[in-house]
Amino acid sequence: MNQENDPETQALNERHRVRMERKKAIIDASIAAADKAIGIIIVNTGNGKGKSSSGLGMVIRAMGHGMKVGVVQFIKGAMETGEERFLRRFPDEVQFHAMGEGYTWNTQNRERDIEKAQLAWEQARTFLADPSIGLVLLDELNIALKYRYLDVDVVIQDLLARPAMQHVVITGRGAPQELIDIADTVTDMTVVKHAFKAGIGAQAGTEW
Amino acid sequence: MNQENDPETQALNERHRVRMERKKAIIDASIAAADKAIGIIIVNTGNGKGKSSSGLGMVIRAMGHGMKVGVVQFIKGAMETGEERFLRRFPDEVQFHAMGEGYTWNTQNRERDIEKAQLAWEQARTFLADPSIGLVLLDELNIALKYRYLDVDVVIQDLLARPAMQHVVITGRGAPQELIDIADTVTDMTVVKHAFKAGIGAQAGTEW
Repeated sequence: MNQENDPETQALNERHRVRMERKKAIIDASIAAADKAIGIIIVNTGNGKGKSSSGLGMVIRAMGHGMKVGVVQFIKGAMETGEERFLRRFPDEVQFHAMGEGYTWNTQNRERDIEKAQLAWEQARTFLADPSIGLVLLDELNIALKYRYLDVDVVIQDLLARPAMQHVVITGRGAPQELIDIADTVTDMTVVKHAFKAGIGAQAGTEW
Repeated sequence: MNQENDPETQALNERHRVRMERKKAIIDASIAAADKAIGIIIVNTGNGKGKSSSGLGMVIRAMGHGMKVGVVQFIKGAMETGEERFLRRFPDEVQFHAMGEGYTWNTQNRERDIEKAQLAWEQARTFLADPSIGLVLLDELNIALKYRYLDVDVVIQDLLARPAMQHVVITGRGAPQELIDIADTVTDMTVVKHAFKAGIGAQAGTEW
């Protein structure tokens, strides 16, 4: 029997069509309702993978739309990562600052960490005051907040004072509740499975 | 009193140093134990943001390390997204195929969706057979599996037969259990808060 004429297949296709029609109506309605075009604050937190790489992906999207981008890497930055090397190829589109000196468990010096985090925040603040920058990525900012290297109230004040159309993406595990409260979109990257646990090393291209 | 000489601050700094020293020892040990350098399968699933953008970020990392990359966009692709526009600037580094015709709730034609998904899988298979490609991004593959546009057993067989050093990143909500079972790293992007719900529209640069 020709599959196209099979009544079971036809019924399946018809059920699919009806279900998708309903889904389209729901999605269209929610898109129509969501019509405020303003800059948003996105927070990627949690213990799983994808927080920084998702922020990096949003940088690429913004560049694809012709936006200028500012990136500040908190805490990380001693390591020459693949993304840093890549983004430095576009000096007219991306301003990149990696002001940390590796994770604090490598330095074990709290006062130096605080000083570096505060210098990095000064850089972030200049991006947050510049309306020509369409997207600001504050990579691993949550770590600096978690260790109280930065004052969360100061950070929030500067975030809220930014240009109306500017997007901000903030990454790092342990986002403080105060930041979640003022964010528009918050995602918790939850570990289901991690290759490290299976004895697989950090891989160029996927982890750094 | 000079803050550096304040006994409370000194004690805080010392506790921090000891805690970080312990942390460093644990992390060093787990990195030393994780020394298998092989290609891994990463799955980004869940209802939250960041699945595709994280995949895109890994593409950028891989490019930063001089790898060649293959991208197949399943289901999506009718829309000219920022990332597609950006990646097409690097034809020597990235092979990009967007074979879907928009989400299925826009087409409402199951047979055409199946045909498109299978053509896309043919393209994926050529990447998965090519050892010169260091990373393959199969964007929204999970959706095609969820709607049974593709046979999960065939997909898994092709994934497992790929070159030993090749990484694969698979995105989309609703990853099937069979895929999770063979993956190395699986992250569930969990919604904490979403700007859509607050009436904010999809924004160029962050959503597409």
